Amino acid sequence: MGCPARPERASAMIVRPRPGLLRLFFILRGSVLQRIFPQVVVVLALSGAVVLAHRSDPGRIPSFDGAPFALLGIALSVFLGFSNNACYDRWWEARKAWGQLIAMARDLLRQTLLLEQRGPEAAAGRRRLVDLAIAFPHALVVHLREGAATADLLRVLPAGLSQTPPGVPDRFLPDRILREMGAVLARLRSAGHLSDMEFVMLDGILGRMTEALTTCERIKSTPVPFGYTLLLHRTAYLFCFLLPFGFADVLGWGTPLAAALVAYTFFGLDALGSELEEPFGTLPNDLPIAALATGIEIILREGMGESGLPAAPEPVDFMLL
Amino acid sequence: MGCPARPERASAMIVRPRPGLLRLFFILRGSVLQRIFPQVVVVLALSGAVVLAHRSDPGRIPSFDGAPFALLGIALSVFLGFSNNACYDRWWEARKAWGQLIAMARDLLRQTLLLEQRGPEAAAGRRRLVDLAIAFPHALVVHLREGAATADLLRVLPAGLSQTPPGVPDRFLPDRILREMGAVLARLRSAGHLSDMEFVMLDGILGRMTEALTTCERIKSTPVPFGYTLLLHRTAYLFCFLLPFGFADVLGWGTPLAAALVAYTFFGLDALGSELEEPFGTLPNDLPIAALATGIEIILREGMGESGLPAAPEPVDFMLL
Amino acid sequence: MGCPARPERASAMIVRPRPGLLRLFFILRGSVLQRIFPQVVVVLALSGAVVLAHRSDPGRIPSFDGAPFALLGIALSVFLGFSNNACYDRWWEARKAWGQLIAMARDLLRQTLLLEQRGPEAAAGRRRLVDLAIAFPHALVVHLREGAATADLLRVLPAGLSQTPPGVPDRFLPDRILREMGAVLARLRSAGHLSDMEFVMLDGILGRMTEALTTCERIKSTPVPFGYTLLLHRTAYLFCFLLPFGFADVLGWGTPLAAALVAYTFFGLDALGSELEEPFGTLPNDLPIAALATGIEIILREGMGESGLPAAPEPVDFMLL
Amino acid sequence: MGCPARPERASAMIVRPRPGLLRLFFILRGSVLQRIFPQVVVVLALSGAVVLAHRSDPGRIPSFDGAPFALLGIALSVFLGFSNNACYDRWWEARKAWGQLIAMARDLLRQTLLLEQRGPEAAAGRRRLVDLAIAFPHALVVHLREGAATADLLRVLPAGLSQTPPGVPDRFLPDRILREMGAVLARLRSAGHLSDMEFVMLDGILGRMTEALTTCERIKSTPVPFGYTLLLHRTAYLFCFLLPFGFADVLGWGTPLAAALVAYTFFGLDALGSELEEPFGTLPNDLPIAALATGIEIILREGMGESGLPAAPEPVDFMLL
Amino acid sequence: MGCPARPERASAMIVRPRPGLLRLFFILRGSVLQRIFPQVVVVLALSGAVVLAHRSDPGRIPSFDGAPFALLGIALSVFLGFSNNACYDRWWEARKAWGQLIAMARDLLRQTLLLEQRGPEAAAGRRRLVDLAIAFPHALVVHLREGAATADLLRVLPAGLSQTPPGVPDRFLPDRILREMGAVLARLRSAGHLSDMEFVMLDGILGRMTEALTTCERIKSTPVPFGYTLLLHRTAYLFCFLLPFGFADVLGWGTPLAAALVAYTFFGLDALGSELEEPFGTLPNDLPIAALATGIEIILREGMGESGLPAAPEPVDFMLL
Repeated sequence: MGCPARPERASAMIVRPRPGLLRLFFILRGSVLQRIFPQVVVVLALSGAVVLAHRSDPGRIPSFDGAPFALLGIALSVFLGFSNNACYDRWWEARKAWGQLIAMARDLLRQTLLLEQRGPEAAAGRRRLVDLAIAFPHALVVHLREGAATADLLRVLPAGLSQTPPGVPDRFLPDRILREMGAVLARLRSAGHLSDMEFVMLDGILGRMTEALTTCERIKSTPVPFGYTLLLHRTAYLFCFLLPFGFADVLGWGTPLAAALVAYTFFGLDALGSELEEPFGTLPNDLPIAALATGIEIILREGMGESGLPAAPEPVDFMLL
Repeated sequence: MGCPARPERASAMIVRPRPGLLRLFFILRGSVLQRIFPQVVVVLALSGAVVLAHRSDPGRIPSFDGAPFALLGIALSVFLGFSNNACYDRWWEARKAWGQLIAMARDLLRQTLLLEQRGPEAAAGRRRLVDLAIAFPHALVVHLREGAATADLLRVLPAGLSQTPPGVPDRFLPDRILREMGAVLARLRSAGHLSDMEFVMLDGILGRMTEALTTCERIKSTPVPFGYTLLLHRTAYLFCFLLPFGFADVLGWGTPLAAALVAYTFFGLDALGSELEEPFGTLPNDLPIAALATGIEIILREGMGESGLPAAPEPVDFMLL
Repeated sequence: MGCPARPERASAMIVRPRPGLLRLFFILRGSVLQRIFPQVVVVLALSGAVVLAHRSDPGRIPSFDGAPFALLGIALSVFLGFSNNACYDRWWEARKAWGQLIAMARDLLRQTLLLEQRGPEAAAGRRRLVDLAIAFPHALVVHLREGAATADLLRVLPAGLSQTPPGVPDRFLPDRILREMGAVLARLRSAGHLSDMEFVMLDGILGRMTEALTTCERIKSTPVPFGYTLLLHRTAYLFCFLLPFGFADVLGWGTPLAAALVAYTFFGLDALGSELEEPFGTLPNDLPIAALATGIEIILREGMGESGLPAAPEPVDFMLL
Repeated sequence: MGCPARPERASAMIVRPRPGLLRLFFILRGSVLQRIFPQVVVVLALSGAVVLAHRSDPGRIPSFDGAPFALLGIALSVFLGFSNNACYDRWWEARKAWGQLIAMARDLLRQTLLLEQRGPEAAAGRRRLVDLAIAFPHALVVHLREGAATADLLRVLPAGLSQTPPGVPDRFLPDRILREMGAVLARLRSAGHLSDMEFVMLDGILGRMTEALTTCERIKSTPVPFGYTLLLHRTAYLFCFLLPFGFADVLGWGTPLAAALVAYTFFGLDALGSELEEPFGTLPNDLPIAALATGIEIILREGMGESGLPAAPEPVDFMLL
Repeated sequence: MGCPARPERASAMIVRPRPGLLRLFFILRGSVLQRIFPQVVVVLALSGAVVLAHRSDPGRIPSFDGAPFALLGIALSVFLGFSNNACYDRWWEARKAWGQLIAMARDLLRQTLLLEQRGPEAAAGRRRLVDLAIAFPHALVVHLREGAATADLLRVLPAGLSQTPPGVPDRFLPDRILREMGAVLARLRSAGHLSDMEFVMLDGILGRMTEALTTCERIKSTPVPFGYTLLLHRTAYLFCFLLPFGFADVLGWGTPLAAALVAYTFFGLDALGSELEEPFGTLPNDLPIAALATGIEIILREGMGESGLPAAPEPVDFMLL
């Protein structure tokens, strides 16, 4: 909301066939190479300078034995491994929460079939529930993704909800949609269209949607502890910048290549971890939550027998937002 | 659906007794050796060339100390270890979702026994539910596996569902089967054949089938982040192609053997991770979902007392589709 | 069922106090040493031959630097670590499924106390449910373990189930026992002995027994992907057979000892992983499912106030089947 | 409660944008560098002394080969990796328990909408439930965090609960709040405002709040086994203090830098693990439970249509308590 | 029960503030150093002897290069890491099961508030349920911990349960307590004090207590596979005893220190894993289940408004049983 400068066409999640061997090295989209390019170039240049200085004046530039580097490098690998694992788990948990929303859309369609047989008021209640369920994931996108487009949300937001000015969805919108769905259920129950057991069953859908909302908020608001991130960053950077001094002796002009390769791997994993840690952004490896929201809308509209469904989101430039 | 060129007889999951020690080295089926053979040969040839050049003209070909390679190799091992773990977890989660479908088939058979004692209409409803439950896993196979055969699905698809032309099952078919099951339950409830508690109990089966469907779609549509895969691929390939330069000095003519062994292990794990990452395909280590669907059908038909059950799927050439 | 040659007295799970330090090296039962003895001896002999040849004619036998071996060895350790972890998780999940059966036996005893107060027909229904619950785990042992003894099953199988010839339990027996339990519940419900809520509560027990059955079948029928196993096997064997060539130079006559120790560790972990992967067999480290089935029977009979309970299974030769 | 000396303004969880490359090395807040600064300086000084002594009198100070250090360092990395993973899991589980409280607040608001339509007594019951739910997380903060401020708790604690003197919340306060909520439900049930199914649904909220309370208590009262912590601490310290002796030979004056870098990484991970292990404190990387409690209060008040919500907690000096 | 020789005052779980840096090295309580002291001394002595022999007669004692040791040591670290992780998970799962008992005590207090408003018979039933719930965790301690004191159990065991001689609690006591609780519920249901829904809700508490009992039994009766433990033990011991031969050459008189440090770490982790594997014992790092049982009793008595609660268990000599 606060950063409209971020381009709306930025996108998330790469969708492409697995490329062949040769092309593998020339893909830029989705690679973190673009983001860590400056750092890798710095390591490359530094390595060249160290080797050059080493050759021209061997005693001037300190050169170290490789053993301590191996030790630190292996320690760093292990810690980066665990850290990436934790970030991947967050990303996957976020995706599971959205999967739960998809399942809830299907459960809602199916469990409210009962209402169709209980008169027009009950059927209208069902329609209202589905309309609100269509709006919920779009509201969640706006809630979770900084600077997300609000066009889709405004297109589907049912009347009778917006007390805040249109175009400025407030931070309680997902809450209010769920509570409005609860109010519809309460009215249907009071009017005798639902037994208490059926009411509890339908409320269970709202409970699990609340759970998904809360999970997404937790992942967004609670990053991996900052001290942890900082320690890994610092160690990775210091390690890669010291690397040339350790390798110059034994590798000679192979040093820049080796150091750049190591830097690419370590900086790359570090950068990927950061992308996965906050899975609701629009970086290439983030989750396509806008596309998922449209997918839920399509499932709900198809289930209500609507024609003229929105087009299924297509990846642009191999990416899905 | 879009790639009929892929042979239908291709199969998934190796089913064979653990082979003896000697035969272990000559098994091709199920091994990833076939898929990574070209790359391993390239490493082998490159190693030979490097050693040859090294011997004939020591100063021409750069040779590096092994220490940086050890460092990178160990880092790569740790990352490949975590990555393979994540892919295995996806594969196992997919298998669990199918296990849930098997359990649901059994629950459906048992929980609908009540209906048999509530008159012919209720018993007919039970039969309809079982028929739809037989169709569901076959529809899910077609939904999840690119180019899957549709013969089994068309054989079991009950009348009254197909609004799309036969032979072209649409992408909402699993949804529609589950909703039709929900409609049967709603009719039974309205007709008084089910108390509200019993209705909720039976709807719970449909809820967990929806969950399994959504889980499978999630695994299929959300691969491991592309940047991650790309980084591991690139590092593994660069590492293996540089290996001969690092080993030629110390290993001499042992270099090709050692480099090929390392390449086999690293390329192999990388390739296996890719196979497990998308567990619904027809590669040798994928899940035999067509066989599982037939297994569910057999459980349901046996439970209804039918004779003439379909044959249990048998592995062909050690593989089960 | 198909391999009666496997001796029935073979057993699973070692039950013994932790031995003292010295005796630790002389225990054979439960150790994988017996299974991997030939391979370790081969490595020992090969090492001796390599050292001998190396000493007598240094130029003839190639000797390699240890660095590539260290690299491959560490990679192999990481992969074996993850693989053993996955196998242990399968084994533990299988044990949890059996634990769920134990909990279900207790829930059944407690939740059916209601029936004792609702007349003789209801009490007879309770007795029938317990008898079937006694038979279920024994049937599951025969279902899961190749060549398991059927004596216990035949002893407890209630009348009115066996349509197949006695002594040849078919593969649907666990299903049929659970369905028969479901039929008892349905009859009790129809006769008014259970409210719908109570019916659903008791059916929940059957649902979780179905879940345990399906989990066990999943673990039995879906081994760790064959390509994975194959790759680890091959790498471990090639690594251990090449080891003497790498160590002969620096270790001299210490080579056989070191190579055998490494081979013992790597072959041993590989072999243990295979044992845990299929936890229902009768190898020393498998689960004692026959003893667990008898334990469930004892819990159920004790809960019904029976005297003359079967003896608790005792480990024979430190092992529990 | 017992340590009022700890400053109340101390805070937890760093909230700041990811800093740029250069600034990364000059951040102190949230870094563990402050806490491990003395130890790192000791290692730095010791390294300098060892190198100096080594240069001036090579035979006096023992110098060791680096190989055993590499071995111990890698072992330590693996163990620290696993240990940090366990601590992170505890921290994340604690955050999940608080997430569950947030979800429960939302469920309570929604599920009690029914009561608004059942007369003033029922509506008053709803208000009482919400007031108690507002007090619960504040009481939990005081329960879990040593020396937490009690102002927020006293502000929101409803009348009719405090039998203990105000300002001295006893250790059963969270229990008593939940039981009082249970008593409100029991009264509503007895007065006929809730069907038994609705009563069970609402009691389920209290059940999951109890679960969250118990989870937090478990994490607080059961640290990672002390022997484990002790072993890792000791090994890490001995390792870092011996490091200079192992590196002085090969690294010369590079030793202090390398040793300090290794010490920073190992001591830092060890210290971070300790911070995460007890996530309810006020160290920089702990959970902002006071802010979370206020967040839950805001959700509940907004849902009741109150104006004049408390201000959302803002990070002070990049930290959120 | 069978080993009264084990002193009753032995205790579990260390409860102490994190000690300062210097004192860290002089703590014995809770350290595994006491248990592995003999082995470490053996390694120390052996190292000294090897170095001495090596110095006096270099050709007599074989000395090996360190590389194979590094390889084996790293492999061992990885395997010990995974193994300790598995043992920690068991320990934590056991603690979670006890946490579930605490939550159940709270749920029981709250959910039975209904009964207080339904006449004296219902209130007496509530009192009986709570008395049985107080006895259950004490019975579980005796059930799980070899040689546990039975005084607490006998103090709280309600009349009408003990058919076995007092002082000799039989192994079905936890089962019988839970069944007796079930019988109380069944009587309350038959007498019309509970609706079927309320009955199912309260029975759910007993179901989860059964689950906790079964989980604890599973952890107690199913250790980590013996072959796995044996392999790790043997490798660790062989490795540490061979270590001096590998280090004597390069480390000289530093060998005993380095070997003892490595042995301390590896033997220590191995010993800690064994302690955590069986978390119900009375070793320093085991779970304080007797204290937890008293804690549950206090929660229940406080909830019933009793005065004269038992004293909260205090750590003796930094340990809590």
